[in-house]
Amino acid sequence: MMRSGLVSTRRYCSSSAIAAKKWIYAKVFKGEPTQHNFQLEVDKLPALKDGDILAQAEYISVDPYMRPYMMAYPAGSLMIGGQVGKVIDSKNASFPVGSSIFGQFGWRTHTVCNPETMKKDQPYLLPSFGNLPTSLALGVLGMPGNTAYFGLLELCSPKKGETVVVSGAAGAVGNHVGQIAKNLGCRVVGIAGSDAKCQWLKDLGFDEAINYKTANIFAELKKAAPKGVDVYFDNVGGQISETVIKQMNLYGRIAVCGTISNYNTAIEKVSDPLRQMVFKQLKMEGFVVWRWNDRWMEGIEANLKWINEGKLKWHETVTEGFENLPMAFIDMLKGGNTGKAVVKII
Amino acid sequence: MMRSGLVSTRRYCSSSAIAAKKWIYAKVFKGEPTQHNFQLEVDKLPALKDGDILAQAEYISVDPYMRPYMMAYPAGSLMIGGQVGKVIDSKNASFPVGSSIFGQFGWRTHTVCNPETMKKDQPYLLPSFGNLPTSLALGVLGMPGNTAYFGLLELCSPKKGETVVVSGAAGAVGNHVGQIAKNLGCRVVGIAGSDAKCQWLKDLGFDEAINYKTANIFAELKKAAPKGVDVYFDNVGGQISETVIKQMNLYGRIAVCGTISNYNTAIEKVSDPLRQMVFKQLKMEGFVVWRWNDRWMEGIEANLKWINEGKLKWHETVTEGFENLPMAFIDMLKGGNTGKAVVKII
Repeated sequence: MMRSGLVSTRRYCSSSAIAAKKWIYAKVFKGEPTQHNFQLEVDKLPALKDGDILAQAEYISVDPYMRPYMMAYPAGSLMIGGQVGKVIDSKNASFPVGSSIFGQFGWRTHTVCNPETMKKDQPYLLPSFGNLPTSLALGVLGMPGNTAYFGLLELCSPKKGETVVVSGAAGAVGNHVGQIAKNLGCRVVGIAGSDAKCQWLKDLGFDEAINYKTANIFAELKKAAPKGVDVYFDNVGGQISETVIKQMNLYGRIAVCGTISNYNTAIEKVSDPLRQMVFKQLKMEGFVVWRWNDRWMEGIEANLKWINEGKLKWHETVTEGFENLPMAFIDMLKGGNTGKAVVKII
Repeated sequence: MMRSGLVSTRRYCSSSAIAAKKWIYAKVFKGEPTQHNFQLEVDKLPALKDGDILAQAEYISVDPYMRPYMMAYPAGSLMIGGQVGKVIDSKNASFPVGSSIFGQFGWRTHTVCNPETMKKDQPYLLPSFGNLPTSLALGVLGMPGNTAYFGLLELCSPKKGETVVVSGAAGAVGNHVGQIAKNLGCRVVGIAGSDAKCQWLKDLGFDEAINYKTANIFAELKKAAPKGVDVYFDNVGGQISETVIKQMNLYGRIAVCGTISNYNTAIEKVSDPLRQMVFKQLKMEGFVVWRWNDRWMEGIEANLKWINEGKLKWHETVTEGFENLPMAFIDMLKGGNTGKAVVKII
């Protein structure tokens, strides 16, 4: 309401005066990304045309998918990614100055665009989060949250009393999946990469958590899931998945959300899983969350409701400063984050 | 009608006079089965009690699944498998003498059982096949036919114009799957193990057939499926499947029916398929046909209708003689059959 009073096509700041910065994918990734893959550049902002907005980044997301997705872009491209921004200039009545928005603007501090002419990845006004920080639009109330919500519920149909295993469980999606499964009355086992992460998962309500860096996963999972595994929500692929799939029950469901274990490496060899698939009659489905674009707000509202009811906890690993985006990304790929990794820009 | 006139609890032959034979799984399979894994024994038949029937085998099935399934049985067990038999004695009005039945009786010439007390694998009276041989109840009008029918239609939802790839395409299930897909207006590519099989598949109407023993499968499939693969019906697993999955389109569907490539060997290592699963958003489902037990006759009737309309051709590789069951089974596992492998007993 108050913000709508700021709409003006006259009082906009001069975009040419802004020191707009962006991170370029300067060298193609090979193995683990390093600082050398990135280059900071200063951007020239165009003048706003009718329908355009100028958005200033407040939080920028770093997510595992960026590692494999960037392989489709040539060196010299802008780094991709979502951000939460504030509209600081506008020639678009639907996006008045002062609005908080989510946009797939990439790693840049300032963006000029016309939301209506963007077919895919259209920016949207954040719904009201109450007293919650807007950064959650990059996590539990955004893409990772909807990934957990739709991926688990639509592809795995977990039922009360069933056993759900989540890999990459301390990541943004994984911890959320486990909490939803607990809300549904499932037994939940998380697999994560440190004792501290495992303790955090148990604090969140996970029944068991396995540190894959120190445990015999097969033996520990046998103990943690004595009735076998009905649902496997996979964020990692590779050997961990091979091990979990061997303990699945008849008609088990596997949602493959990501395979972070091989994003920085050649795809590893695993035991052909197809024989397990036949005799256990398993269903495995890979997915990308954009398939539920038409139900986007449903996911956000459901997760917001759970948060407000105290049934869904969120945690962010926040890095400060636009200049630290590459470091935050590199660290996240190594498992340095607990919960959602975001970078605070202003 | 005429057959019902034969029902009698008095005029049954004396089962004790019958030289009933059976094949025993004498030694646990290691690698390729050989004659040494099997032992022929003579069986003692019990006297018929109320509700019992005595069935004489006419055709016995040899199927790929028997190789992995027998690993769950101890040495000394009867070899499992379906057969078409004739009721030659009966104390059960639902199964009069002279009836043709299908039963999961294993590799034996004579079987005494009470159909009503068998919870699973209940024998059933064959529906009328017209002039078609009753042996089809082991193939195109039985388990393999229903495997093709339900597996393709229920799990893969092939649409007109889509490209369907079938591995193990010259087997009982594979050739049938391809023919259904052609009936639906799909482009169909078969993968099989000899030039003669490939020619047969093209005679059946397959658009292309690839001999995996001589071709560069990846390159040939690129040519045969220039728009990529929408549906993959897999009977073999292993390297062939790895290759096909790499050429699948967004939202591709994979039905995993069997993995005959590794039934006689250790499960091989393949490139972790999960990354393909995510970015192509593939769905893969393993299945065993018994999940559609409650719709069994629907499948048989649909396939029979296609046969009568000239839209579904069938072919059998028939071995004669009960004593040749092991040889027929061993040969089938090596790909010696084209179409359904059956053994004619009488």
